[in-house]
Amino acid sequence: MSTHSEKYGGSIDLSHHLSDVAKNRELSPLKGLQKYMQKPGIISMAGGTPPTDYFPFAKLSGDLLVHDSFPLSSSSSSTSFSWLWKLFGVADKTKTDTVSVSKLPDVPGGLSLAALLQYGPATGDPHLAKAIREFSANVYQPAYSDWTTLVSVGNTEGWARVVQTLFNPGEGFLVSEWTYPSALAGARPYNLKPVPIGMDGEGMSAISLREVLEGWDESARGIKRPHVMYTVPVGQNPTGATMGAERKKAIYDICVEYDIIIVEDDPYYFLQQGEYVPRDARVDSREEHDAEKFIASLAPSFVKFDYQGRVIRLDTFSKTIAPGCRLGWFTCNPLFAERLERAGETTTQSPCGFGQAMVASLLTHWQYDGYIRWLQALRLQYKHRRDFLIDSLADEFHLDLSIGTSGFRNGSQVYNVSFKRASAFSEKHSAQDGRPIFSFVPPSSGMFVWLKLHLEDFVPPGSPSAKIGIKQLETNLWVAVAEAGVLLGPGLYFSATPVTDDMHGDGHFRLSFSSTTEEDFKRAAKLLSTTFRKFIKDL
Amino acid sequence: MSTHSEKYGGSIDLSHHLSDVAKNRELSPLKGLQKYMQKPGIISMAGGTPPTDYFPFAKLSGDLLVHDSFPLSSSSSSTSFSWLWKLFGVADKTKTDTVSVSKLPDVPGGLSLAALLQYGPATGDPHLAKAIREFSANVYQPAYSDWTTLVSVGNTEGWARVVQTLFNPGEGFLVSEWTYPSALAGARPYNLKPVPIGMDGEGMSAISLREVLEGWDESARGIKRPHVMYTVPVGQNPTGATMGAERKKAIYDICVEYDIIIVEDDPYYFLQQGEYVPRDARVDSREEHDAEKFIASLAPSFVKFDYQGRVIRLDTFSKTIAPGCRLGWFTCNPLFAERLERAGETTTQSPCGFGQAMVASLLTHWQYDGYIRWLQALRLQYKHRRDFLIDSLADEFHLDLSIGTSGFRNGSQVYNVSFKRASAFSEKHSAQDGRPIFSFVPPSSGMFVWLKLHLEDFVPPGSPSAKIGIKQLETNLWVAVAEAGVLLGPGLYFSATPVTDDMHGDGHFRLSFSSTTEEDFKRAAKLLSTTFRKFIKDL
Repeated sequence: MSTHSEKYGGSIDLSHHLSDVAKNRELSPLKGLQKYMQKPGIISMAGGTPPTDYFPFAKLSGDLLVHDSFPLSSSSSSTSFSWLWKLFGVADKTKTDTVSVSKLPDVPGGLSLAALLQYGPATGDPHLAKAIREFSANVYQPAYSDWTTLVSVGNTEGWARVVQTLFNPGEGFLVSEWTYPSALAGARPYNLKPVPIGMDGEGMSAISLREVLEGWDESARGIKRPHVMYTVPVGQNPTGATMGAERKKAIYDICVEYDIIIVEDDPYYFLQQGEYVPRDARVDSREEHDAEKFIASLAPSFVKFDYQGRVIRLDTFSKTIAPGCRLGWFTCNPLFAERLERAGETTTQSPCGFGQAMVASLLTHWQYDGYIRWLQALRLQYKHRRDFLIDSLADEFHLDLSIGTSGFRNGSQVYNVSFKRASAFSEKHSAQDGRPIFSFVPPSSGMFVWLKLHLEDFVPPGSPSAKIGIKQLETNLWVAVAEAGVLLGPGLYFSATPVTDDMHGDGHFRLSFSSTTEEDFKRAAKLLSTTFRKFIKDL
Repeated sequence: MSTHSEKYGGSIDLSHHLSDVAKNRELSPLKGLQKYMQKPGIISMAGGTPPTDYFPFAKLSGDLLVHDSFPLSSSSSSTSFSWLWKLFGVADKTKTDTVSVSKLPDVPGGLSLAALLQYGPATGDPHLAKAIREFSANVYQPAYSDWTTLVSVGNTEGWARVVQTLFNPGEGFLVSEWTYPSALAGARPYNLKPVPIGMDGEGMSAISLREVLEGWDESARGIKRPHVMYTVPVGQNPTGATMGAERKKAIYDICVEYDIIIVEDDPYYFLQQGEYVPRDARVDSREEHDAEKFIASLAPSFVKFDYQGRVIRLDTFSKTIAPGCRLGWFTCNPLFAERLERAGETTTQSPCGFGQAMVASLLTHWQYDGYIRWLQALRLQYKHRRDFLIDSLADEFHLDLSIGTSGFRNGSQVYNVSFKRASAFSEKHSAQDGRPIFSFVPPSSGMFVWLKLHLEDFVPPGSPSAKIGIKQLETNLWVAVAEAGVLLGPGLYFSATPVTDDMHGDGHFRLSFSSTTEEDFKRAAKLLSTTFRKFIKDL
């Protein structure tokens, strides 16, 4: 089904990365009973398991969309999502099959509520665990032989378990200078210190990473050199950058050199949309469904370069099935997996049985190939959404393409955005001189467009606005936009280091294109234009 | 619907109990956006939420047993569970109704997969949260006014969140001398020290508690006086003891005096079975369904005495619906609830949407009264199971009733168990002299019978067995029983203090009567008899 690269041997000994908490976790004494539990005919009076007769659900059923509900076509027009449906007639997002799980298995060895609604191991339902392992083998292709997978309750819980497993309080961890706020929020209570690394168009910069590590001065920094990196390498949150194979290899090699564990939080892996092509240059296209070809077209995971077993990959069904699944998995070395499993036993135990039942049913019913077909189409949906948002901005603003030369935009296509000349519009401060109000790099993956706001360029010297820092300026604009009817992600939430009141420079907004309707994209672009105009005029 | 006792004012300030980790948790900055999120017509481009169109499940359905599937009758015969069904003809554990949740609500404001499968708040689905709050109000009746409820992912996760919220590493916590191993396992990695408190027939002893606290010697103990108590007050695990109102009041008052937070882990609350009546004295009975009367017949929760808000009650659907729900809730003061909610946000987020959908559907469909009817019958099922197990022991052993005078049996009915005189049996060491091999107090709640093993009474002086401690002796018997085909809970797993090799005294086994079939109860009793005989003979 897939071409695995030749495997290295097993993972190397990385036990020195384990936290004191992780080392102190004991194998449940009940595990010692397991050899007897398997014994045929054994009468178990050991556990506090209710009899399945008392489970009030006799059957659980789901109306499941067919796996090819969404088309594999991309259109050059972006006037309407429904256009796609009409033209190709492939998709029918109302056609469903029924999947169900009864109290007793419908086929020998099949899924059953008797098992799924009972206490279960932290390794999850065996059918689900098997499907997940096969998926990681085919799609991510870890480079060493003894890698393993383990279910989690989603990537937030996955990261929380990693925090407990790898960190002693007060340690530092490497992170992109702009990063996912919830990952920071999960680490902060344990007094963990994010150490920001510079970015470019592919996300975290290998050059910046080496500089930070090489020049690490423990006494100046107040903490030891970090031994863990947290990264969202695909559809980086918030910048939307995607890290290609070469960059990943370079970063991996540095992590080998400095003995760093890479935590690859990768919820957007299947939302890889490729380069943004302006509307006028866009052509219709239609993909064939070919699982292997599709997988090969995607940026590889860090685990594909992981010949030592130093990557903990976090996967989730949140973006590919639904967030409410609260189901994901780790792909990592067996030592970490065992400690993560122990941590699961005394926290979430196993994931919810109803959720496991439906996700396992989906994977069983669609099969691997059907699920990949679903993912292949899903990414086109997000591509279309991204395109529609940028097109909507192009309708309301003037977009100028350039190539970024510094920071996280280095080498990327950058759109500089200025106001369109409005004929019946007269302004005191004309921002119609072509100076960019904001700029952005079209994201190649994920759900977000990251705007850099050049607000301070428009602040008249000596005005009250000149006295406030970018934090307040960004917040003022955010509030103005929200009051006008559009809710954006405030840029300062994504800074790995706190933004203080006296800082000057560019502000940022994160625009999500994941769930807005076409009409609202258009309305939002219009509202941004009028609000920005007014805001800049009043500076 | 229920008679609430007069409420005290609000909870007192207990913020000094919060751990450093809990204090460091920040309100998610995104919470600041909430006031705008509610605004009608707002276009949200802030979050990374997939559109509900891409959720592959259009509908989730469950075949739900009718709420009166199990009878409210108790029979004096215990030859067969099925007897109940036959005689009263009330129960039909195959009769089901269909409950379902569609992508969009079937009624305005109703449950929907669009909401349940989306990212949700750590407070859970509002329908579920409301039902849970009403349930706690009606059933547990907290004594103060500003108590609140908050969903968890079951009591193991609930306790894990409490550990993070109340403890700094290395602190001690009060616990019964015999206790639930998983609670210890969840605390041990953080170097928390269980401080065992003596027990009697109602579980934790108030006298022993006061002694420990009064005489606390920090330098001798090496730790500060504990500020948290962990307790399973109903169907205490492993002893099966139930703490009545008076004892709870006494313990609560001591906790007020010494400023202690009570964590009430109460999974067996609805498995209150009352006193064991020997088979010959048992009479048929049939209860009426009356929710209020039924609730009033149960031992009250600690929260009913909690006029200061110092109880964190942990509830779970694991024993009343199914463990696979992975759903439970906290009942506690608003300060702790807020910190526990923050902890949820960066770990499990919200409970699984599929599970919430089905549990909320059950509660909505059965309604409060129907759910109470289910619980009322469920407890009779477990009563019958308990009776059947003890009856089975009585078939194979000789049982002598006495009143306990010390330790956790003080004041309780104690059954001393010796071998029956087997006519065609000749033994070297005759244990047929009436000396008890083991003894037990019939549990009044829960799922377990706790056997005290008097093995050392049978060890011939100078024999090899006399040289080994009770740990090894218990283990040897456990293995012999397991090899014979019965898996029991090894007593030493439940000791709050480690059992060392050189300790002497009584051993223990925990026998679960939760899920064994009638035939297996009988087989198990026979196997215990023959294995114990052989084991004692060979000592």
